[in-house]
This record gives sequence, C-alpha cells and structure tokens, in this order.
Amino acid sequence: MTYPRYTALAQTLPASVPFVGPEAQERSRGAAFEARLGANENGFGPSPKVLEAIKSHAHEAWMYGEPESHDLRAALATHHGIKMDNIVVGEGVDCLLGYLVRLIVGQNDAVVTSDGAYPTFNYHVAGYGGSLHKVPYKDDFEDTDALLDKAREVGANLVYIANPDNPMGTLHDAKTIENMAANLPEGCLLVLDEAYIDLAPSTAIPTLPIEHPGVIRMRTFSKGYGLAGMRVGYAIGASELIRSFEKIRNHFGMNRLAQIAALAALADQDGLQTIQSQVTASKKRIAEIARDNGLTSLPSATNFVAIDCGQDGDFARAVLAELIAMGVFVRMPFVAPQDRCIRVSCGPEKEMAIFAKALPNALKAARAV
Amino acid sequence: MTYPRYTALAQTLPASVPFVGPEAQERSRGAAFEARLGANENGFGPSPKVLEAIKSHAHEAWMYGEPESHDLRAALATHHGIKMDNIVVGEGVDCLLGYLVRLIVGQNDAVVTSDGAYPTFNYHVAGYGGSLHKVPYKDDFEDTDALLDKAREVGANLVYIANPDNPMGTLHDAKTIENMAANLPEGCLLVLDEAYIDLAPSTAIPTLPIEHPGVIRMRTFSKGYGLAGMRVGYAIGASELIRSFEKIRNHFGMNRLAQIAALAALADQDGLQTIQSQVTASKKRIAEIARDNGLTSLPSATNFVAIDCGQDGDFARAVLAELIAMGVFVRMPFVAPQDRCIRVSCGPEKEMAIFAKALPNALKAARAV
Repeated sequence: MTYPRYTALAQTLPASVPFVGPEAQERSRGAAFEARLGANENGFGPSPKVLEAIKSHAHEAWMYGEPESHDLRAALATHHGIKMDNIVVGEGVDCLLGYLVRLIVGQNDAVVTSDGAYPTFNYHVAGYGGSLHKVPYKDDFEDTDALLDKAREVGANLVYIANPDNPMGTLHDAKTIENMAANLPEGCLLVLDEAYIDLAPSTAIPTLPIEHPGVIRMRTFSKGYGLAGMRVGYAIGASELIRSFEKIRNHFGMNRLAQIAALAALADQDGLQTIQSQVTASKKRIAEIARDNGLTSLPSATNFVAIDCGQDGDFARAVLAELIAMGVFVRMPFVAPQDRCIRVSCGPEKEMAIFAKALPNALKAARAV
Repeated sequence: MTYPRYTALAQTLPASVPFVGPEAQERSRGAAFEARLGANENGFGPSPKVLEAIKSHAHEAWMYGEPESHDLRAALATHHGIKMDNIVVGEGVDCLLGYLVRLIVGQNDAVVTSDGAYPTFNYHVAGYGGSLHKVPYKDDFEDTDALLDKAREVGANLVYIANPDNPMGTLHDAKTIENMAANLPEGCLLVLDEAYIDLAPSTAIPTLPIEHPGVIRMRTFSKGYGLAGMRVGYAIGASELIRSFEKIRNHFGMNRLAQIAALAALADQDGLQTIQSQVTASKKRIAEIARDNGLTSLPSATNFVAIDCGQDGDFARAVLAELIAMGVFVRMPFVAPQDRCIRVSCGPEKEMAIFAKALPNALKAARAV
C-alpha cells in the first residue's frame, strides 16, 4: 500500500529550512552561545510595560486569541491613520508572506527579488511552485530599477524589496520607493517589507495611498518592539487585497498573549523611543569595534550592522566560523560580493564586550588559514 | 491596471471564517459575556506551574522560538515512547491540519469527513481546492464504516475523524479506531484528531505502530493542558510523513513562550491530573443542570457536554440565542439531528452557576416563541 498521496508539487519540494536556528548550532557545538547577535533579534527586549502586560495577562492563556485581532488592528489603524480594513495581523511577517504567496503565486508564476535578500520569502515562493528570478544588489543596495526591469521582463506577479534592507542594512529614501510603486508593470504587486522601519529614519517611510492596488507593506513587532519570540506581524494594503487573506488565513492562529504584548508595545511609544536610542548606540558600538580591528562597516538603518571583513566571502566565512566557535552567534550574507561582510545584531553591552574580545582573535585565526 | 493577479483557486474562494469568535459576539451585543463556555476552551486554565513558567520566561520574548521545537519534541518523544522524528510541532492543530492538507490535497482531490465535524478542517480542504465528501453521524457517533466506505468510493486522499468527537463528545474505543486504520483504502491517509484525548479514558487510545504509513494523529495543548491561547499542537506519525512538513511549514512560526509553556505543562502531569478531575466534576455539573431542566445530556469523553434540548434544531438555536442574549457564550452542532443539542464547555463553578441560572429562562423564552 502506498500512503500518502502527496501532491505533485509537494513531491518536488526539498525538506529545507531558510535558516538554521542558533539553538541547533549550540547543540552541535555542545555549548551555549555567550553572545546571541546573529538573528537580528532585538537584544534590548521589549519595554518593561510590555513585559508587565505579558505577565499580568498570563492567566488568560486558556482562551483562544481573538480571531480578528480586532483591538490590535484598531490600535494600529489609529497609529497609522488608516482603517482597520487595511490591516491584517498574522503570526509574524513570515506567516503573512506565506499567505500572500499562496494567494498570488501558482505553479510557474514569476516572482522577482534580489539575489541575497530574504530567504524565507524565497522559501514560500518555492513552496507554492513559483518561479523565482533574482537580480544582483547594486553597491550593497537593492537595485530598484533592476527589480522593476526584471519584473517587466518575466511578467512577475510579485516583486519583493525590503526597505531598510536585510542583510546589508542599507536604506532607500521614500522617493525611491514611491517611484518604484509608480512604475510597477501591469499586474505586478510590490511587496514592501518594512520589518526594520521602526528603527529607520522617518525619511525612509514612503507616502503611498493606502488603497494603492499595487503595494502591500509588511510590518512587525519583532524588531523595533523587541518581540520576535511572540510572532506578531501585520500587512498594510488596499482593503480588497487585505480582505483576501480571510479566504485562507488560520483565523485562530494568533497567540493571545502575543496580541496583548503587541497592543501594549504599540501603546508604549516612549518605550519604543528608549529601544531606538539603545539600538542607535549599539550600532555605533559595533562600528567602533569594526574600526578598532581595521575594518569598515556599512551605515545601517536597522538593528544590525554589516561589517566588511575586507576580503572575499571565503575569508568572511572563516571569520564567522571562528566567532561561532568562540561562542558568538552572528550570521552573514549568502551572496557575493555582499558575503565579504558579517552581520552583527545590536544588543546590550555585555554581548558587545564579548564580541569585541572575540573579533580580533577570529580575524587573526582566519588570516592564519 | 489590474492588481494583483490572484491564483485561479484564490479567485474562487469565499472570504470565510470557520467560527465567529466570542469577542465579535460581545462587540455586536455591546457587552461582555458573563460565562465563556462556547469554544471548548479549558476554563480551569493551565496549571500554576505553567503560569509560573510563562511569567518567569517572559523576558525571553525578544528571541525567536527555536525553529525545530527540539526540547518540546524531545520531551514529547519520551512522554509517548516514540522518536523525535515522529513528531512535528506547530501553531495549534488548526495550523498542522492546514499543512497536512497542503501536502496531500490538490485541486479536486477527494477528502472525507463527517457531516457536522470540524469546520476548520473543511476550511483547509476548500482552501487548497479539495473536494469534500461528508457522511452522516450514526446515533451521535462518527460512523467509521461509512467514512471508510465513502473514502473507498471517492478514492479519498484523506479521511478525517476526531476521537473523542467534537461537537458531540462521543467516543469510539481503541479497537474501533485500530480497525479503521487496518482497513483504509489504498493511498488514503487517516487523520486521527485526538485533540481531546488527554481528557478521555485510556481505553480510547488506539495502539498503532508509530511507523504506520496510513495514520497521522493530531494532539494539542489547548484542551487538557488548558493552553488554547498559546497555540501549541503536534502531529504524530511515520517519520517520512512527519519529515514532509519540513518542506512547507513556517519554521520560525512558534511563539517562544508557547514552547516554554507546553514544555512546563508536559512536565507537570500532576497538574494535568488536577485539571482532569476538575473537568470530570464540571461535566457532572453540566449534566445535572440539564437534568434539573428536564433535559438529557450525552456522555462526554471531552471537556464539554452536548445537552439535548429535546426538540429540533430550530428550538436549540432559539435556546442558544437566548443564552447568548443573557451573556452565556455557548455553541451548538451545525447539522441535524445533532443540532437538537447545545454544546457547553466545562469551566469553574462561577460560570456554571451563571449557566444554571440562565438555562431555565432560555428554555422558557424559546418555548414561548
């Protein structure tokens, strides 16, 4: 007997994971990391008010999360000056990207992204049978012209850009993104991943009509608000597009404490400002550590810094391996020439000091290979 | 310009929700419910040790959940005497059912379930373009013979059964389920939803070889462990089938505090026993309330009781509407003749007393219509 009957698509998919988690690396090296600076988590954590909200509502864990995320969407609508109908909340941006791809990408449909951009988006495109087309970065920036040209060339249903960018931390100004939205090819939806926007200067926030039928924006509580572990993302877009998520989303998928934490985080804008200041100082600290080791770093509009290790990808990978071996969890870009860098997430001084101590040794060891 | 290009399937899907949440009902009636007894949540909540675990780990909310749920799967493997490779953890059973359907059900593929069984499963089948075939209940039990006959007739890829059943609370013994697994049609996978199994007698737990290629079992921390709001479910099955989830699942979808809460809940089997006792007492109480009103109730192997309102579906719907209006959140089966019942979830005495007070008035009002 042959069970089960996988779909034709499922049979072709590899068992793959966009990222290996730091805990798996800890298990394989047999020791915990001393500094967790690799996943662009926010080491400063959520604000004290948010922690208090989680604790004081823990006893509500027996109730399902409210399936419409009504209160959170209402608060977000006020915060952004838009309507609730323009917002869908989901279990992190990863989940919402999956839903979006499912709605729009069928077998062999074309999708465009940058080579070296967010692997989880690519994973979803592959998972629904889409055909992914990649364009190179241009001077460590995502190349908006090349993205649109490629989208036009292949008749893409989706074109993805993160602004600020991950993994380089670079930023396009609002005007560049607005131009992109104004010049989309027929039928192509712009997926504007603004996961890091809460840590970017306000000049990065494009002015786009909320009912623009060609743009959907992804936001998260994982980065600026320090709640990666709670899994709360949201998408902003035209009401018709947002409503389409109701066709497929896991309506009772939201964790109730996550909804409560996000609501508390949004209400505590002073707390966000404190975190923003901490992140700014931490980025400066990482740049100083790079400079102390004779390296340059890229200006970052996010909560991480790409440090240029000054040689090729093999060298940066050697530096990374040494850091991992020394108990410092960092990651790096996947694709040349961006892979000359390692990517270090912001965090408290304790972790920074560990990184500062490890980096010279890692560089020395990598150079000795 | 036309954006976006929805897939052919997405264009055909309605914007639908398997259940309206109680909070939406509260908003529409303009007042909170006094007793929340409708969603088969566990009103006794998680054990004190679990609450303490959530609170004491709240500060970890800045870290992504471990993408393999390694520690939880290791603990579950020990608990069940199986291997980690036989377990996949996901954001509630709803999410895992969605993944399973995605892996196995393509456009027009046949799936079999009982008419009136779990709507969220049906929602996922529709969402992936599957063709759903339903068989009636038999004397308020899911009809295992009819399910298999229909699966054979239509060449189903999946056949779904919940044991214990929702919404009736009835139970098949282990032997009946084992027979079902032994008589599956070629290529048909049995989806055995055991969401309520932690509240059922051990006679309900079938002995099935873990590597049986034709069965996947769904378990959850939402019911017995009282953690519905945390969204932790898991599937148990043959390692090859379980591994296939790695192709499509949202690897970083698990809430970190949910993983911690589930691990603490599993470790606290004394806490589970306490909850089981509370649920048993509460079921007795609900049955007494029914009897006090001249109604019968169905024996239940779950954490809810179906009360037979003694007339047809219209009457039960009227009773339900009266209860809702009185601030008592309950639900009821969707399909005749099961819709002669209302379904009341277990909960603390405070809620029971409110229900006990409301029911006679609701019956009186419904009879007066």
